[in-house]
Amino acid sequence: MTSKPRVLICGDIVWAHEQVQFLLGPIAEVVRMDSSSREEFYKELGGDGKFSGTVAIYRHNSSADRIGVFDKDLVEHLPSSVKWIAHNGAGYDQIDVDACKSKGIKVSNTPGAVDDATATTALYLLISVTRLYCLGERVVRDTSKTASGSPGWKPSGISNSAHDPSALVLGILGMGGIGLRLAYLCRAFDPPMRVLYYSRSVKPDMPDWAEYVQSQDELLERSDVLSVHVPLRDDTVGLIGEKEIRKLRKGSYIVNTARGKIIDEEALIGALEDGHLAGAGLDVYPNEPNINPKLLTFSNVALLPHMGTETREAQCKMEVRALTNIKDFLEKGAGRDLIVEYQ
Amino acid sequence: MTSKPRVLICGDIVWAHEQVQFLLGPIAEVVRMDSSSREEFYKELGGDGKFSGTVAIYRHNSSADRIGVFDKDLVEHLPSSVKWIAHNGAGYDQIDVDACKSKGIKVSNTPGAVDDATATTALYLLISVTRLYCLGERVVRDTSKTASGSPGWKPSGISNSAHDPSALVLGILGMGGIGLRLAYLCRAFDPPMRVLYYSRSVKPDMPDWAEYVQSQDELLERSDVLSVHVPLRDDTVGLIGEKEIRKLRKGSYIVNTARGKIIDEEALIGALEDGHLAGAGLDVYPNEPNINPKLLTFSNVALLPHMGTETREAQCKMEVRALTNIKDFLEKGAGRDLIVEYQ
Repeated sequence: MTSKPRVLICGDIVWAHEQVQFLLGPIAEVVRMDSSSREEFYKELGGDGKFSGTVAIYRHNSSADRIGVFDKDLVEHLPSSVKWIAHNGAGYDQIDVDACKSKGIKVSNTPGAVDDATATTALYLLISVTRLYCLGERVVRDTSKTASGSPGWKPSGISNSAHDPSALVLGILGMGGIGLRLAYLCRAFDPPMRVLYYSRSVKPDMPDWAEYVQSQDELLERSDVLSVHVPLRDDTVGLIGEKEIRKLRKGSYIVNTARGKIIDEEALIGALEDGHLAGAGLDVYPNEPNINPKLLTFSNVALLPHMGTETREAQCKMEVRALTNIKDFLEKGAGRDLIVEYQ
Repeated sequence: MTSKPRVLICGDIVWAHEQVQFLLGPIAEVVRMDSSSREEFYKELGGDGKFSGTVAIYRHNSSADRIGVFDKDLVEHLPSSVKWIAHNGAGYDQIDVDACKSKGIKVSNTPGAVDDATATTALYLLISVTRLYCLGERVVRDTSKTASGSPGWKPSGISNSAHDPSALVLGILGMGGIGLRLAYLCRAFDPPMRVLYYSRSVKPDMPDWAEYVQSQDELLERSDVLSVHVPLRDDTVGLIGEKEIRKLRKGSYIVNTARGKIIDEEALIGALEDGHLAGAGLDVYPNEPNINPKLLTFSNVALLPHMGTETREAQCKMEVRALTNIKDFLEKGAGRDLIVEYQ
């Protein structure tokens, strides 16, 4: 019988597979969640089930396929031995933080590890919609309009509606690690994009060129490209709605790599339909993996299937970071990436 | 009867339309090429035709639709009064430079004006293929594989084949203004991409981090992403052929925003088919506006319809720059952007 604390791996570990033993092997008994349903999972958590006595959980969103998200009910079923959930990912909206708090469970995420990967996604979407590459790629691949089904070519006058990002003002809503990385990427254009940002608080140590504005309204009124980088919480659902979108200048763009529910999708679609928005670049959607088919009808919309951190390197970094948070919790009593609700 | 020198506008001026009079009005008689065929054009160039006595020509590729490219025959038909052709564009492969030289006609292009616009295109293609957004965008829009024709979602395990650009070495072939701009854009990633380059000559005043390699072969052997930035000339046709592509590591990427004929397309397609290349991002093709339909079959290929400078701002900058070269020629005897063949 082992005396090492039990750690439950809940969801995928792909790239850091070999590092699980290296990081946790000497200090923990590692068990893997292999339940095929939530009911089966609950059973193994209790009594002398194989997940009983777990003190820390590594969690990846992929576990939701079998046991669902970490909602109130699931968290309440966790044994009282659980003290730490190390979530793999920047956004932790699949975890009911209030329920965790009530049970004395702390939660960490993996910020930083994904900043560049997600900011690169935002940069790609920003270029795609302002330069109309979203349209360019599609006309090439639309073989229905050409003789003998050959690839298409750009419509004449396409440059009338395409802009150099340099000529536009970038507005960053939520200046965390991802927003700041996007700002640096957009400062690399020549000339650099002008960068405005609004966050709940003025950030310390910001570069001179990042201009803090006093309110979200001011950000909306002065930006040509709005890029959203706030977490999904109760108070950020629908943060960008009809009223907010209409505060943007006519001909503005919206980029969303955060969470779909932060933007009111019907308001977004309405503003694309009547031309108030010149385009939108989306990596996230309110009801993933479902995407509103209406979004496919716009020539000035770029759509990715939530690929913000879908790289080998980002996945590996996040896995190692989440595992390290468990290691630090076991060895020092706390991981480094405790989420903001506990700070 | 005017005594001002005659300037012939040959092809589109869209954004700087009002600036034609501002820049050239006081010092030139501006006439517009409105011929519907090469034969008609030739007729107006001679005798007392309305283009006779022209001393400088503004040229845009759009004029080729009616009078063809500035090949040997066309250049030989230009009256001896013509001394300067101000081409609007960075690439001037539609002008027979040798024929111009023989007639004592100087040629300018518009470098610099398009550096950032074209480098941004290369950056977009680089991100699209390394992150597999070219695939992501297409699976979303492929409604043939889902229930009730709704949008698709990412295949599981897509991150296995996607990379952070940061993890890759960028190899720039041809370090002019566009290559250098791309280098700066790719240094903005965190961590920055390692940048190697090869040019016919070591460039002065290069940033420390840009590593010059001694040969094209060395560049190919050491790069993960090859981005091509050499002009199209007789000696650069097929510069990247079968042998060169096979010198790249297995799993490398090629990005081409220069000219299609610089890469041997059959060799490129072969290397995509057998997996030697992990992807390719193309804005240019050997036989534009025709695109080889085979290129549409690869999930790891991003295709744009030559949109490198298709923005309102870039077009305006290029128009003003070409017109200014004519102004400078008329006032000072030479424009600033004399092409390298004359230097």
